[in-house]
Amino acid sequence: MPERRISLRVIGIGPGGVKQVTVQAIEAMSGVDAFLMLDKGTAKQSLLDARTAILDAYAPSGYRVVEIADPPRDRRPADYDAEVRRWHAARVDAIATVLRSDVGDGGVAAFLVWGDPALYDSTLRIVEQLAALDDLHLDIEVVPGVTSASALTAAHGIVAHRIGEPVHITTGRRLPTTPKSVAGNQIVMLDGDLAFLTTADADDEIWWGAYVGTDDEILISGRVGDVGEQIRCARAQARDRIGWIMDIYLLRKAPGTPTDAE
Amino acid sequence: MPERRISLRVIGIGPGGVKQVTVQAIEAMSGVDAFLMLDKGTAKQSLLDARTAILDAYAPSGYRVVEIADPPRDRRPADYDAEVRRWHAARVDAIATVLRSDVGDGGVAAFLVWGDPALYDSTLRIVEQLAALDDLHLDIEVVPGVTSASALTAAHGIVAHRIGEPVHITTGRRLPTTPKSVAGNQIVMLDGDLAFLTTADADDEIWWGAYVGTDDEILISGRVGDVGEQIRCARAQARDRIGWIMDIYLLRKAPGTPTDAE
Ligand SMILES: C[S@@+](CC[C@H](N)C(=O)[O-])C[C@H]1O[C@@H](n2cnc3c(N)ncnc32)[C@H](O)[C@@H]1O
Ligand SMILES: C[S@@+](CC[C@H](N)C(=O)[O-])C[C@H]1O[C@@H](n2cnc3c(N)ncnc32)[C@H](O)[C@@H]1O
Repeated sequence: MPERRISLRVIGIGPGGVKQVTVQAIEAMSGVDAFLMLDKGTAKQSLLDARTAILDAYAPSGYRVVEIADPPRDRRPADYDAEVRRWHAARVDAIATVLRSDVGDGGVAAFLVWGDPALYDSTLRIVEQLAALDDLHLDIEVVPGVTSASALTAAHGIVAHRIGEPVHITTGRRLPTTPKSVAGNQIVMLDGDLAFLTTADADDEIWWGAYVGTDDEILISGRVGDVGEQIRCARAQARDRIGWIMDIYLLRKAPGTPTDAE
Repeated sequence: MPERRISLRVIGIGPGGVKQVTVQAIEAMSGVDAFLMLDKGTAKQSLLDARTAILDAYAPSGYRVVEIADPPRDRRPADYDAEVRRWHAARVDAIATVLRSDVGDGGVAAFLVWGDPALYDSTLRIVEQLAALDDLHLDIEVVPGVTSASALTAAHGIVAHRIGEPVHITTGRRLPTTPKSVAGNQIVMLDGDLAFLTTADADDEIWWGAYVGTDDEILISGRVGDVGEQIRCARAQARDRIGWIMDIYLLRKAPGTPTDAE
C-alpha cells in the first residue's frame, strides 16, 4: 500500500466550558478535514453536546465530524491492564480504517480531548499505535489544555498545596495505596465510588466539584467529617438528575497528621 | 475608613506563549482598571515582555499597568517558611496601598499569573491576605490556565503516566524525599540545580524542557544515563545566553524498579 501522509492534531479543549479553550486550540481547529469522535455511548450525550458546542463556536462552518463507534469493553476485567490494551488495539483498527477512507494524502485529522491530553486520556496512546502502522505517516501535534484539576482549584479559589509542598494526582482506584507521607495534597480523578469516604480522616479537608466549569457546576468544601455525607448525597442526586457524573476533588491532610516519612 | 468594593481577577495566562491563553482569560482582561504587576527584578525582563505581549494582544487598548516593586527577599534563609511568610506580608502591604490609591470603589483590578494560579504561585495567598483587610471588600474570580506541566508533556507528545498510574508534582527541593513507591511519574518544577542528577537512576527516563511553549523552547528526552549531562550543558548554555532559565521535567522510573510499597 502506498504511504499516506496525514497531519494529526490532538487538541486539549479544557474541562468543558466553551470559554476554557485556548487560542492555540482554536487555531488548530481550522483546516481540519475530519474531527474524529470516539463515541462513548448514549449515557454521556451531554459530553458530546459540550464538544459540539466548542466546535460550533470555533471550528470553521461546515466542519466535518466522523464518529467512530467504541468497541465493546469489559469494565470489570480480571486483568485490568490487559483488557485496556486489547480495547485500545480494537480502537486503533477502527480509527485507521476511517483515516484510510476519509482523509486524503496531505490531509488533516483531529481529536478533541477533554481537559489536557496528558492526563488519564488514552488518545495519545492510540495515536502512538496509529503512528506505527506501515501505510500511514503521521505528523503529530499536541495542543495542551486546562486540566479539570486546574478548573477545580480555580472554582474553589485555592492553591493546590501548602507552601512548597508536592501535589499528588491519582485515581479513586489508587487512592487507598498513596503513602501517607505524600498524602498532604491529593487530587483524585476517575473516582466512581468517592474512595475518600473510606480512606480519609474526619479532620482532613476536601474541596469537591462536579461538572466543574460548566453550567451544572456543583462545589462543596469543608472538613471530611462535616461534608462527606453531603458530597455523597449531592453526587447521587446529580447523577440521577443529569444521567451521568464527572467529579474531582482535592484532599488535604490535616496539619500535624503523623506521616510515615517525616 | 469606608469600605471599598473591588473586583479582583486572578488570571492564569498559561506557560508563556501568546496562544496558550484561554478565551475566558481574554474576556477577563477587559474592563480592568489596573493590571497589577509584581516586579521580579531586571534579570527576568523577557518574562515581563511575555506578559506585555499577552496584554498587547488581548487587553483593550489603553490598558493600565501598575508595577509594584518586590520587597527584598532572603533567598537562603535559615527558616524558609517563615521568610516566605514575612515576604508575602510585605507584598500585601505594597499591593493594598496601590489598590487604595489607584482603583476606585466598584473598580476592577487584575493579576496575570504564569501558568495556572493553583501551582507554585503565591498570588492567591496574597489575595487571601488582601481580602482580610478591613477597608477592602474583594470579589475574587480565579481563571484557570494551562500549566507548564501540560506544556511540557504536549511538547514531547506524551501522557504524563503509564496506564492508571498516579502523577507526583514536586519541586527540586523536595525531589530527594519522594517515596520510591510514588516516584513512577514525577513532574519537577522550581528546580535550580537539576536535582534528578543526584536522585535518579541511570535507567530512569526523563523528558526535559526549557522555555516550553515559547520561541526559545528546548526539549531533550531519553535515559537519564544517556542525556543527563547533555541537559546540564544545554541548561547552563541557555541560561548564559538568555540571562535566566525556566525549566521543568518529567522523570519516570524504569519499569520493574523495586519500590518500597508494591
Ligand atoms: C478520563 S479523565 C480525563 C481528564 C482530562 N484529560 C483532564 O485533563 O482533566 C476523566 C476524569 O476527569 C475529571 N473531570 C474531567 N472534567 C471534569 C469536570 N468538568 N468536572 C469535574 N471533573 C472532571 C473527572 O475526575 C473524570 O473522572
Ligand atoms: C513559580 S512556578 C509557576 C508555575 C506556574 N503557576 C504553572 O502553572 O506552571 C515556576 C516554575 O514553573 C515552571 N515553568 C513555568 N513556565 C515554564 C515554561 N514555559 N517552561 C518550562 N518551565 C516552566 C518552571 O519549573 C519554573 O521553575
